[in-house]
Amino acid sequence: MKRARHPVSVLLGKRLQKLRKKAGLSQEAFAHEVGIHRTYMGLIERGERNLTVLTYLRVVRKLGLEQDELLKGLPTPEPRDEGE
Amino acid sequence: MKRARHPVSVLLGKRLQKLRKKAGLSQEAFAHEVGIHRTYMGLIERGERNLTVLTYLRVVRKLGLEQDELLKGLPTPEPRDEGE
Repeated sequence: MKRARHPVSVLLGKRLQKLRKKAGLSQEAFAHEVGIHRTYMGLIERGERNLTVLTYLRVVRKLGLEQDELLKGLPTPEPRDEGE
Repeated sequence: MKRARHPVSVLLGKRLQKLRKKAGLSQEAFAHEVGIHRTYMGLIERGERNLTVLTYLRVVRKLGLEQDELLKGLPTPEPRDEGE
């Protein structure tokens, strides 16, 4: 069953995809760098899965970004069942 | 089965707990504010579960912290199976 996408996950995924492309990396190559499966990276970029903070840290460091680069100006996510 | 704790999750959980206590909030009250179950907050503070970025954003905003406050100086986590 496909879960509804959280709007903040969608924003975050789009930013990530934009910066990944700007770095000239394919989804597959970047997923490999970060240590996750390429299909999982695809789900994250489409906002269908939520990054953990640990994966987030690997992402921003692989891309050479500031630690809050992908978070700046994001709205505060409304709580909802995230499987947590 | 108890999963091994990732060392970076342990560091992050400890920082979170320290700042939550500094803010004078009980684990239960803070979990309620953030919109997760208090037992889940306990697991996070002990590094037994990994925060998602969405929950992280709620946490730092509820505590009135800078967005990268809990991430500063954390080592880059080694990739491993996070259920991702």
